[in-house]
Amino acid sequence: MEELKERILRDGKNLGNGILKVDSFVNHQVDPQLMDTCGRELARRFANAGATKILTAEISGIAPALTTALHLGLPVVYARKTKPVTMTNAVLLTLAPSHTKGVMTELLVAPEYLAGNERILIIDDFLASGETIMGLVRLAQAAGAVIVGVGALIEKTFEGGRAALRPLGVPVESLVCITSMEGDKIIFGECE
Amino acid sequence: MEELKERILRDGKNLGNGILKVDSFVNHQVDPQLMDTCGRELARRFANAGATKILTAEISGIAPALTTALHLGLPVVYARKTKPVTMTNAVLLTLAPSHTKGVMTELLVAPEYLAGNERILIIDDFLASGETIMGLVRLAQAAGAVIVGVGALIEKTFEGGRAALRPLGVPVESLVCITSMEGDKIIFGECE
Repeated sequence: MEELKERILRDGKNLGNGILKVDSFVNHQVDPQLMDTCGRELARRFANAGATKILTAEISGIAPALTTALHLGLPVVYARKTKPVTMTNAVLLTLAPSHTKGVMTELLVAPEYLAGNERILIIDDFLASGETIMGLVRLAQAAGAVIVGVGALIEKTFEGGRAALRPLGVPVESLVCITSMEGDKIIFGECE
Repeated sequence: MEELKERILRDGKNLGNGILKVDSFVNHQVDPQLMDTCGRELARRFANAGATKILTAEISGIAPALTTALHLGLPVVYARKTKPVTMTNAVLLTLAPSHTKGVMTELLVAPEYLAGNERILIIDDFLASGETIMGLVRLAQAAGAVIVGVGALIEKTFEGGRAALRPLGVPVESLVCITSMEGDKIIFGECE
């Protein structure tokens, strides 16, 4: 998606070690109009997936998941990383290694919001190693739900996430694909 | 706002000790259409506040802040509770006691997204004791920004937040006000 690509080239920063800083429009400061445009495009790509719910992970996934959900007319569930006091019943929990933090992160969902043969579309800001998204897949499957697609704003193709998701056999859509971050460059390329 | 009130009465749960569970439409599962309606109403109420940016706190503030921002055409900044690896420069940090967790929570913002005489509208899901919102106020003021208003989806009037915010001298708008949660009841009343 040209608009997102241009924004990354203008305002994104390559911090080295494959870390892309997009804090001025996605991760800390959010550009709602851009997120809405991205959400509309993800909604268009998954219009025929038959999803009944969108699943994402807090925190950075919330904005793109919400705007995609608005355009598809679906509810969103965001997996929590800490258990709030309002989560009183038993929860589903899995661990996912955080590439950027070097630690294991917990992902929790209340099973009542995923059960009942829901058809789940996973939306996140990044598709990198795919570890967080596979954590969401495990949670959804443990709740008895079916995954129907995975969408991301930004894919780093050199971290292997698409290959990790291939066994799911569902469509994977990224709005832009970064094929190299050698040196201080940000190189875009084909997604598949 | 009648639609939010009816949803709270239908799906909200009074867990005791003043804790209202709205996990099925605000805090874990999100109803994007309802959030959009709430955002449109908050945008209407603050249409003349001259805000240049919306500030909220992760995690539950993000959805209402984003939809309000969409309707006002403004960027959103969400204060982080942990420092991501992409936040490489010095940050502004304050502590706010979490009523529902019984611990102190850190709130962090990168000063570059608040400085430059920004006029800040604070949006959050709850106005309870006002402690989180006062934390956001301190961050904004430390960055040299001006607060022009505070908006919340749900106010618990019996926790004193509105009085805590009064010295700011800015408009405070809540879409619904809960005046009592004695026993298992949820009683709505006037906001001011």
